[in-house]
Amino acid sequence: MTKTVPVGVSARHIHVSQEHVEILFGKGYELTEFKPLSQPGQYAANETVAVIGSKGQFDKVRILGPVRPETQLEISMTDSFAIGVKAPVRESGSIEGTPGITIKGPAGEVTIDKGVIVAARHIHFHTSDAAKWGIEDKQMLKVRLGGDRGLVLENVLARVSDSFALDMHIDTDEANAAGARNGDTAEIID
Amino acid sequence: MTKTVPVGVSARHIHVSQEHVEILFGKGYELTEFKPLSQPGQYAANETVAVIGSKGQFDKVRILGPVRPETQLEISMTDSFAIGVKAPVRESGSIEGTPGITIKGPAGEVTIDKGVIVAARHIHFHTSDAAKWGIEDKQMLKVRLGGDRGLVLENVLARVSDSFALDMHIDTDEANAAGARNGDTAEIID
Repeated sequence: MTKTVPVGVSARHIHVSQEHVEILFGKGYELTEFKPLSQPGQYAANETVAVIGSKGQFDKVRILGPVRPETQLEISMTDSFAIGVKAPVRESGSIEGTPGITIKGPAGEVTIDKGVIVAARHIHFHTSDAAKWGIEDKQMLKVRLGGDRGLVLENVLARVSDSFALDMHIDTDEANAAGARNGDTAEIID
Repeated sequence: MTKTVPVGVSARHIHVSQEHVEILFGKGYELTEFKPLSQPGQYAANETVAVIGSKGQFDKVRILGPVRPETQLEISMTDSFAIGVKAPVRESGSIEGTPGITIKGPAGEVTIDKGVIVAARHIHFHTSDAAKWGIEDKQMLKVRLGGDRGLVLENVLARVSDSFALDMHIDTDEANAAGARNGDTAEIID
């Protein structure tokens, strides 16, 4: 059985807490939706911020909503070298011991003491997809991206939930190394 | 037999013609060596230039010497999106139909009408290495990079010559997708 998954390329983005939304955009401010993402209930917000590292900064980093308990900046390894922040590869939400950064919005700025990660590649499976293919939550998979720059990604984390839609998330380094684009398909080979 | 090769990560760089060296740095100017590269006779020059695309520019792009018949800028796909130049994946020297760019040096600037590429990943083999491993010039190989972000690169071009030293050249997107660094080793698996 061929196990085909759509590819979603994550450019640098940030998740923010409501406390930080209010520091960055003003007291009582709430995020507004620009467009929905592949995962149910998730959206790209209209709001963007600047993030400032020791060697450079990125303007207009997109906020993804809804707000989360903790602020988390997700960048590529290329980005981490460019702005001078030694971000480790981590699963989303696993931010203990990661570096912080300064975040600037139109109403104010905040310096977080942790939360900058390179997101570990992963596939969201709806429970029914995972069951059909015999894949378990937390399993590590091998996934092939085809084309002239074809490659096989190892250690692709499976995440399974009733609230997920089938989608593989890779960052821009991984996408560009493979010559892959948003909406391409990949094949789970092991 | 394990076929292990050292990994060389190529950051963005430029090869220039003597004609362009003289436009960029002044009449009669000659490149000066900063440090030798892995391939015999090749060197990173002290000289750098700015390259200017439609959406941005990179300052201090390193020139690699010696001069070549044609000027060629090698960038990553991430770079190509950042500065707004649609560079295709090409083998070095294969620049027909590729986009151009404006290059600026301390003495002047030049706009080339072709020469911007994303370098196709490849391995330089000395003839004796290739013979020992049964690898032929132009063969396409599969190469594994290990670690937390382990991956297998397909379509890695073999280049065989008496004047080459064993080294795999990948760009920063490929290195970062694999979490690999200059001086790591890779294994040819097929």
